[in-house]
Amino acid sequence: MTLINHKFLLAARPMGMLKRTDWTFTQEPVAEPNEGELLVQLLYISLDPAMRMWLNDVRSYTPPVGIGELMRALGVGVVKASLNPRFEIGDHVSGLFGVQEYALTDGRGVTKVDTRAVPLPKYLSALGMPGMTAYFGLLDTAQPNPAETVVVSAAAGAVGALVGQIAKITNCRAVGIAGGAEKCRYIVHELGFDAAIDYKSEDVKQSLQKHCPRGIDVYFDNVGGTILEAALSNLARGARIVICGAISQYNNSGPMAGPRNYMSLLSNRATMKGMLVFDYVDRYPQARAEMAGWMAEGKLKSREDIVDGLETFPETLLKLFKGENLGKLMLKVG
Amino acid sequence: MTLINHKFLLAARPMGMLKRTDWTFTQEPVAEPNEGELLVQLLYISLDPAMRMWLNDVRSYTPPVGIGELMRALGVGVVKASLNPRFEIGDHVSGLFGVQEYALTDGRGVTKVDTRAVPLPKYLSALGMPGMTAYFGLLDTAQPNPAETVVVSAAAGAVGALVGQIAKITNCRAVGIAGGAEKCRYIVHELGFDAAIDYKSEDVKQSLQKHCPRGIDVYFDNVGGTILEAALSNLARGARIVICGAISQYNNSGPMAGPRNYMSLLSNRATMKGMLVFDYVDRYPQARAEMAGWMAEGKLKSREDIVDGLETFPETLLKLFKGENLGKLMLKVG
Repeated sequence: MTLINHKFLLAARPMGMLKRTDWTFTQEPVAEPNEGELLVQLLYISLDPAMRMWLNDVRSYTPPVGIGELMRALGVGVVKASLNPRFEIGDHVSGLFGVQEYALTDGRGVTKVDTRAVPLPKYLSALGMPGMTAYFGLLDTAQPNPAETVVVSAAAGAVGALVGQIAKITNCRAVGIAGGAEKCRYIVHELGFDAAIDYKSEDVKQSLQKHCPRGIDVYFDNVGGTILEAALSNLARGARIVICGAISQYNNSGPMAGPRNYMSLLSNRATMKGMLVFDYVDRYPQARAEMAGWMAEGKLKSREDIVDGLETFPETLLKLFKGENLGKLMLKVG
Repeated sequence: MTLINHKFLLAARPMGMLKRTDWTFTQEPVAEPNEGELLVQLLYISLDPAMRMWLNDVRSYTPPVGIGELMRALGVGVVKASLNPRFEIGDHVSGLFGVQEYALTDGRGVTKVDTRAVPLPKYLSALGMPGMTAYFGLLDTAQPNPAETVVVSAAAGAVGALVGQIAKITNCRAVGIAGGAEKCRYIVHELGFDAAIDYKSEDVKQSLQKHCPRGIDVYFDNVGGTILEAALSNLARGARIVICGAISQYNNSGPMAGPRNYMSLLSNRATMKGMLVFDYVDRYPQARAEMAGWMAEGKLKSREDIVDGLETFPETLLKLFKGENLGKLMLKVG
């Protein structure tokens, strides 16, 4: 029996908001593993804001996806065949497998995951890249002290929801900025944030002033644009801004908006620092263990927004940029 | 004999580039010191880019100068009368005396300076606020390591010229960005910078790439705008940007330009940090001693651009924003 692999290739360098014609949906027979390789059947594919950045032809931390190439994506799946001694048929694994049904890989960057205690999709959310990003971005890059005020944008998103909860675990005040009443209710009542600001109905700058009367000590930025500016306008002295993402700007057809009030860094002796989760790969196991412990204690929750069907990839990805997902967005495959 | 004090008051909240009608030039009899006070005759008044920021009605590290108030300025002078036990007639002093001929003060923030080894104007340049800014901004905020590449903008200015020289003393490579061939020649041939980029005749982004083939490790920014963006485009991994000033933006009538490519902080795991020299007051004596030592050894030079006449203040201040000064700009009074 020949297996068929369906996959999405990048068809064109996109301008502005993504559209279906930016992609080619194609198929091919699945090849057999050679010596050292394994074949993974994808079960869940992670959809992340950073994907939009990987499509731009600019120098960044990773080369852009080339025209005609498989779209890059993290995923989790099950090993269907293996000529690699590290992996056996039936193992669950995570890796950068791409937007497709089957991935043939030499095993580099592939990690075995344990699904006995934790369901597989969590390895794309709290125990995956978003979890590691929240953990190291907050605890290592920002280094919050107890009783400090931590503000996070895209607070109902995969990373933001975890940042706020880890801030609470660290005995900080957590204030989240999110779009819409449902997300705001979720982060306060289900996740335990101290306050939520609905950027769709509130003046974020004024609301930050209200909820952070002594100023913002840590601002974890996932969105950029005017919300970053609102945070810069409300910094406490010695504040740390973690630059993790800028989702509001990724689909601009022109350049991003730069923070016009960045001189607030000077008047507040503040720091703005970029972080990339991949720098912490060596420390993932320790962080995953701590996060899993918090999850088992009920201190850390994550929600996954799972959409069925590989073929929906182009439209499902747009949910991120429209703010339509609640929790970690991913595709269920097969 | 009654002494007359001439002084500049802020007449109006300026919009865009400063003009003479933003100021009131006025005079009054000089009062006698009361108990605890001293009377200082100003000899040199410091003209600094930050003065433009002090005129805007925005929250910053210091309140704006009020309409009708004496224009704030650093200065050095000589004590003419004293009922303060810390000071005697004939002492040379520095302090925030304002743009005027005579200052009556209770002595708070006033420092005695020693003019036997170092001429008085140096206490407004290398041994004054610009010197302390360069010293702590580079050594404390950026913490350059030997062999790293340090880039500084406004490199022929009061702060920038010192930053490059201290970078060389620290065994770094120093690359300066300045306006015009004369300034570029000065920083390379007289101050010992490794390279200079003339932003008036070169593409700064391309020239930075040429002169910093391994990227910029430390960027000390005095100017903001497109030069800050050019630096962000050429960062080395782990780069530190010191936000010290943004002179290219101070006379905008609208908001400043924010750095549109600030996400380079993320791809390069870089840091942008604001610094304010006043935070280091306790450490000035140690820094002054070290700087004076370097000056005595001939390793650190400073040039002063001294303009005669208090009454020229409005026009002389504009030299800063037109890039017409070479070295520390100050007024000679009396």
